[in-house]
Amino acid sequence: MTAMKKDEKLVQEITSRDVDFARWYTDIVKKAELIEYSSVRGCCVIRPYGYAIWENIQKILDTRFKELGHENVMMPMFIPESLLQKEKDHVEGFAPEVAWVTQGGSEQLAERLCVRPTSETLFCEHYANIIHSYRDLPKLYNQWCSVVRWEKSTRPFLRTAEFLWQEGHTMHATPEEAIAETEQMLNVYADFAEGDLAIPVLRGRKTDKEKFAGAEATYTIEAMMHDGKALQSGTSHYFGDGFAKAFDITFTDRDNQLKHPHQTSWGMSTRVIGGIIMTHGDDNGLVLPPAVAPIQVVILPIAFHKNPAVLERAHALAAELKAAGIRCKVDDTDASPGWKFAEYEMKGVPLRLEIGPRDMENGVAVVVSRDNREKNTVALDELTAKLPELMEAYRARLYEKALQNREAKTTAAVTMDEVKAQSAAGNGFIKTMWCGDLACEEAMKEQAGLTSRCMPFAQEQLSDVCPVCGKPAKTMVVWGKAY
Amino acid sequence: MTAMKKDEKLVQEITSRDVDFARWYTDIVKKAELIEYSSVRGCCVIRPYGYAIWENIQKILDTRFKELGHENVMMPMFIPESLLQKEKDHVEGFAPEVAWVTQGGSEQLAERLCVRPTSETLFCEHYANIIHSYRDLPKLYNQWCSVVRWEKSTRPFLRTAEFLWQEGHTMHATPEEAIAETEQMLNVYADFAEGDLAIPVLRGRKTDKEKFAGAEATYTIEAMMHDGKALQSGTSHYFGDGFAKAFDITFTDRDNQLKHPHQTSWGMSTRVIGGIIMTHGDDNGLVLPPAVAPIQVVILPIAFHKNPAVLERAHALAAELKAAGIRCKVDDTDASPGWKFAEYEMKGVPLRLEIGPRDMENGVAVVVSRDNREKNTVALDELTAKLPELMEAYRARLYEKALQNREAKTTAAVTMDEVKAQSAAGNGFIKTMWCGDLACEEAMKEQAGLTSRCMPFAQEQLSDVCPVCGKPAKTMVVWGKAY
Repeated sequence: MTAMKKDEKLVQEITSRDVDFARWYTDIVKKAELIEYSSVRGCCVIRPYGYAIWENIQKILDTRFKELGHENVMMPMFIPESLLQKEKDHVEGFAPEVAWVTQGGSEQLAERLCVRPTSETLFCEHYANIIHSYRDLPKLYNQWCSVVRWEKSTRPFLRTAEFLWQEGHTMHATPEEAIAETEQMLNVYADFAEGDLAIPVLRGRKTDKEKFAGAEATYTIEAMMHDGKALQSGTSHYFGDGFAKAFDITFTDRDNQLKHPHQTSWGMSTRVIGGIIMTHGDDNGLVLPPAVAPIQVVILPIAFHKNPAVLERAHALAAELKAAGIRCKVDDTDASPGWKFAEYEMKGVPLRLEIGPRDMENGVAVVVSRDNREKNTVALDELTAKLPELMEAYRARLYEKALQNREAKTTAAVTMDEVKAQSAAGNGFIKTMWCGDLACEEAMKEQAGLTSRCMPFAQEQLSDVCPVCGKPAKTMVVWGKAY
Repeated sequence: MTAMKKDEKLVQEITSRDVDFARWYTDIVKKAELIEYSSVRGCCVIRPYGYAIWENIQKILDTRFKELGHENVMMPMFIPESLLQKEKDHVEGFAPEVAWVTQGGSEQLAERLCVRPTSETLFCEHYANIIHSYRDLPKLYNQWCSVVRWEKSTRPFLRTAEFLWQEGHTMHATPEEAIAETEQMLNVYADFAEGDLAIPVLRGRKTDKEKFAGAEATYTIEAMMHDGKALQSGTSHYFGDGFAKAFDITFTDRDNQLKHPHQTSWGMSTRVIGGIIMTHGDDNGLVLPPAVAPIQVVILPIAFHKNPAVLERAHALAAELKAAGIRCKVDDTDASPGWKFAEYEMKGVPLRLEIGPRDMENGVAVVVSRDNREKNTVALDELTAKLPELMEAYRARLYEKALQNREAKTTAAVTMDEVKAQSAAGNGFIKTMWCGDLACEEAMKEQAGLTSRCMPFAQEQLSDVCPVCGKPAKTMVVWGKAY
């Protein structure tokens, strides 16, 4: 039977996660039909199943942004070279990795346009036009779009020349307000990652070396993937009034003084889909958190060809669940149950609901969780109440498992020998004290292959000195290898 | 008082619609805060109020597309030159108006990439990878994105180098299925335009001269603006298997034969926002159809400083209306009622609800319609039932008024003298018979300044011959001047 052959093929072709993590990742991305490569260098096609995950991410974040008073806008996708150059640090950081439009139709352009790698400069130009008085502040804008950074290597979701994201850009009357916004949005990302995606994250501040080009401070949430490597999953920047000065943005304050507003920006991208895969996935495929799963419950009618009533009941059930706000799908194709089991495990559907003739007689269905294949027999008339509970228990297990992985792969080091030994032993988070010098940060990279992930808000006093130079330590840093 | 000054300024600065339609249009676009120009040639900033209209358009269309089985995807924004060239007619049509990326970072690209003007070529490349069997068909994909066409002139929403749209791209096993899809999606657009936007449209087919580059047939909905000019508001294309052959897309059919699938594409863009403005707007500003209005009802508490209970009741009312699915806003700022009236008329808010101390005593509110300023006194406990009725009556009036405008400005002509006289008399729709020859279509442009808008599905027999050449007529065409 064709269906069974396809089943076997599907299972065979996945590389084991512990044998080759990178190949396992790209296998899943292809097999779960999230992404397909294209002939456009560095760019991918996001397929319906992958894009549906992004749409769910968008819905959740967009709702939270709007609840906090943010409004969506749309800026041009091009930035004239002279505009990009207005803020010195910013252009230095981004110019080497942008794509340049030099021709329009048959005409050679007088000034090159870059395809936006990020839109601070465009927002600033606009803000200069529309901000005049303290009454115009704060401006709380966001946009959903794609941006382009000319990367040398390509890795679906994690590193592509073009990627989808949202970028918030806000302007405030005072530094205090802007800093509060920066922190608030970092917390929105952290709560989303931990609550909705079941991914534990470290909240902290980036070192100067790792901060955003042109920012005064960058805050970050850092997640640990199953292989111990770090994924920067969302960032929030405080700019002070640096851009405002460069772009001549001023407002008349209540005291009638002309002042520069204070600025933030913050972004989360399709990278987090890579984070979901690498945090929760296993050798059977994707494992999706319910909040963003395109299908939360797949309903599989069993032996329905001989019992048309089973199929009817399955569809009635689906209508009931949909009305209760549960995303579900009935698979009534001719494929074998074995093929379907494998297919929806590959797709990471949180719960599989099986209903056969005998179940119907008993007024129950069997519900199987994706993560541990635990079976629950649930009365049909209790399903709309029980399924959300089972999903929440499943989500909590995913979070707990990811947290345990992180804890098992996080160590503290006091000396460079310890740092090197821990780095050589595995790719985890390594906590050390740090003197604050760039030279010592660079030494960590050279001697142990580590970059600073963040200076966590939750600080610990591991020792009094920097392990590199032995000088007094100023702060604790978490180091790691990063995607 | 500052607020009153702003009020007067607001009202003064609008050009009258009948004095200068083009200036009236750009005045509204700016004053209603829909768009702001940017320094990027041909590109605009879509401001929160304008973008909120687009978000409402997206929600309605996206829901309908999905109900009909379509799925969203995301293709790259770049098209390598060799890919664009694969279909001869297509590249001829689009190459003169695309923006070219020639550099990435510091590297000169071996092959130019154009910024997508439309994505048939990208979808075809992807379809060649994923379509193998009749079981893979139909593929019903859509994407929401922006596209770039290097236009010489700029007009907000109507003609910009970059604009937002959705583009559906589908593949089918048979021509019949593909043609049915083309027609179905045109009807989705027409129903949306007439039902949700209150814009009457002609449904018809484009002449070969006006059809999409590479298509076998293009269907269109054509709206008439208040000034009599036409706006092409949505198009749906049938491609046959031309692209499929050029891109070597094949599938094994049920009969085990290798075949090419049949293709469609269809799109609607931010142009329709321009259509809304030019169909319904008046000398006081925007007039928005309720389905896409960011604010459907603005609640203005009157004399609330002396009566805090009024403000409280206004907010309680807003909560009630929101729970009933009505988009509403309380304006409790210090601006004068006069300023607020002008502001929300400029913004085109369908209904204004005024509630003052005496209204509260009487348990009523006054509801004023944007279009005719008709006042209705409504009992507070009947508002959630009454407001949707008032909005529907308002929508019906907008539609009726637009239809009357179109009928008043549509004429039929049998001879070229009649065509020329009617064209010189005003910019409306002119119906004539046509022999089908390109030469006669071009003569209409040269002699009367008219382009063919469409060959309407609702045909009439006006005479037996083409007014240009006198040869036997094949079809009736509607001609006009178009945005």
